[in-house]
Amino acid sequence: MSDIISATTTAPVNIATLKYWGKRDTTLNLPTNSSISVTLAQEDLRTLTTAATSSKFAKDNLWLNGKEECIKGERTVACLRDLRRLRREMEDADASLPKLSEWPLHIVSENNFPTAAGLASSAAGFAALVVAIAKLYQLPQSMSELSKIARKGSGSACRSLFGGFVAWEMGSAHDGTDSKAVEVAPLVHWPTMKAAILVVSDDKKDTPSTTGMQATVATSDLFEWRIKEVVPKRFEEMKCAILARDFAAFGKITMKDSNSFHAVCLDSYPPIFYLNDTSKKIIKLIHALNDQEGKIIAAYTFDAGPNAVIYYDEENENKVLGAIYKHFHQVSGWEKVADKVSKFDDCTISMDADMHKGVRKVILAQIGSGPQETAECLVNDQGLPK
Amino acid sequence: MSDIISATTTAPVNIATLKYWGKRDTTLNLPTNSSISVTLAQEDLRTLTTAATSSKFAKDNLWLNGKEECIKGERTVACLRDLRRLRREMEDADASLPKLSEWPLHIVSENNFPTAAGLASSAAGFAALVVAIAKLYQLPQSMSELSKIARKGSGSACRSLFGGFVAWEMGSAHDGTDSKAVEVAPLVHWPTMKAAILVVSDDKKDTPSTTGMQATVATSDLFEWRIKEVVPKRFEEMKCAILARDFAAFGKITMKDSNSFHAVCLDSYPPIFYLNDTSKKIIKLIHALNDQEGKIIAAYTFDAGPNAVIYYDEENENKVLGAIYKHFHQVSGWEKVADKVSKFDDCTISMDADMHKGVRKVILAQIGSGPQETAECLVNDQGLPK
Repeated sequence: MSDIISATTTAPVNIATLKYWGKRDTTLNLPTNSSISVTLAQEDLRTLTTAATSSKFAKDNLWLNGKEECIKGERTVACLRDLRRLRREMEDADASLPKLSEWPLHIVSENNFPTAAGLASSAAGFAALVVAIAKLYQLPQSMSELSKIARKGSGSACRSLFGGFVAWEMGSAHDGTDSKAVEVAPLVHWPTMKAAILVVSDDKKDTPSTTGMQATVATSDLFEWRIKEVVPKRFEEMKCAILARDFAAFGKITMKDSNSFHAVCLDSYPPIFYLNDTSKKIIKLIHALNDQEGKIIAAYTFDAGPNAVIYYDEENENKVLGAIYKHFHQVSGWEKVADKVSKFDDCTISMDADMHKGVRKVILAQIGSGPQETAECLVNDQGLPK
Repeated sequence: MSDIISATTTAPVNIATLKYWGKRDTTLNLPTNSSISVTLAQEDLRTLTTAATSSKFAKDNLWLNGKEECIKGERTVACLRDLRRLRREMEDADASLPKLSEWPLHIVSENNFPTAAGLASSAAGFAALVVAIAKLYQLPQSMSELSKIARKGSGSACRSLFGGFVAWEMGSAHDGTDSKAVEVAPLVHWPTMKAAILVVSDDKKDTPSTTGMQATVATSDLFEWRIKEVVPKRFEEMKCAILARDFAAFGKITMKDSNSFHAVCLDSYPPIFYLNDTSKKIIKLIHALNDQEGKIIAAYTFDAGPNAVIYYDEENENKVLGAIYKHFHQVSGWEKVADKVSKFDDCTISMDADMHKGVRKVILAQIGSGPQETAECLVNDQGLPK
């Protein structure tokens, strides 16, 4: 087909340091509290999405990682509806514009990391979907404006529209018009922030986060205090810590908020458990490391699953990775830093020698940028996946 | 020696259904919230204590389970001081009374359950110590009055001065004069209440409860809400549920409060973990059982360790023990009910077939009475352990 137009973008994964847990509106994905995240570099973790459109396409279609998927999901439909509405406004104002808003879309999306890693891919996925279509439609809206659309796809997706340190301001409007992502600080403000991800094996199926968070909202008696008193204070403190590049303060709030989030999960009825015995051993290792150093040089955080993300500043890399390597050198993922391993500090902390058995791999990552332009394109000249 | 006088008592173990966690005064063991417990029958779990005194004894001495122990611990000293003061008041008022308050004490105490079971024995121990000496001294004080002394030995010991369902009213006085145990309902009010205890194996040393609770008071941001809002409401609701013999209401609050307590432990900094992966599987089993029945017929609770105590009403024994037996029939402790096993319901719930490996034994218990008179005596005519 000759008249296919397309646009492609990447989008990053983000890992919250102040957790999003609880929706006040489940259709619009409006949260019960503001949250903060660090965007990870896309070298290891990114979604690549091409959006193509043509008047010749028969219908909207979506391919994820090479497989055709249903595009009728209400969250995807909500995003497409908003993007087409914005395009239509442009077309209404300028009759010379092609009526892209009326043409079917073909969306082709690929992750560069296995879904099996248990790392939420929906954030990167919806961020890439929205940015690719916005680019295809040449929408003039800012990333913050587009983040409100990505938010309807997956709450935390709104934070993947920026690099560096990102806040999702919960807003107060009923229609969600003020619930959006904003940049707290760009990547260049604190480029030495790094993250080691320990992918923890788990035999059980975790409670999906949407189900889990609404169970917490409905049943936890501690939750109200968390969202009204605990998180708002931490939101301001964490922004200050980031702006001051104060790792100790940033790390302490990060760890406390991860624990607070898992505490309200446990306080739900029935209780929801995401941390397993391996997760707990990792928590103890990080506290032991910080205790030994006499200050916080590493900070763990856990999302709705047992995987640990350990933030640290590059200046302490040999100490932090030394402690992790000592206990998890048996797992894959260290190849990437093979030339650095000999420089890691000898860690004198002794934990359970078998704790590596609960971990499948390590992913060494760092802070990264937001959605990127790319020369790659995932559709062929028939508008189908290459 | 001919002029030795002695008194002996038993005292029971109690398992909180509304948890005590946090002291507002660490010397007087004044709690940050009121709590409720069920007293367990002494057939399987009790302390037996003889208190002996003689003007000929050289000094205060204490033997626990056949071993001489230090009697100078501040908590034991506080109890002895209070009991001697009450005796002295009697002696001052009636000069004909022997001056027992001035004589050394020999205390001999034995548990009928292994300390290694991980079941807090300090509650039964301090309750028996206080009651034995009060009896030796012929003190006229009520059990509630004596509970204030036992409380100084170990907070939860105050609840072991009564049988049945017991409340520890936190009180508000700075000197602790109104922080005492009271009976919510006696054993005969609801004699069909039973408890199955699953003793869970654990390779790690748990944080001692005194250390743990004060870490929570100092560092958990959710704790304040728990003690101010959550527990006071549950305290009234649980007393009503007990008085109404409403197992579903009693069980739900019991489970929610256990989870709330472990949630504030997890919210402490560094986090405190008492539940392990086996504990979590037991929680899931009980929820699955209740879901299958369409009502709450079993309720778990966990103290400062991984052991599960599962309350149920005798009318549902075959269902509840059927579910437990299916998953834990390999462990010891079922001998006691060998004649009943064939009547247990076939449980159709399928959990991890290996979960029994995390459990060391089952103790089948039921609700019981408070400290009991006994003809046994643990000291010989030299005032030493028999």
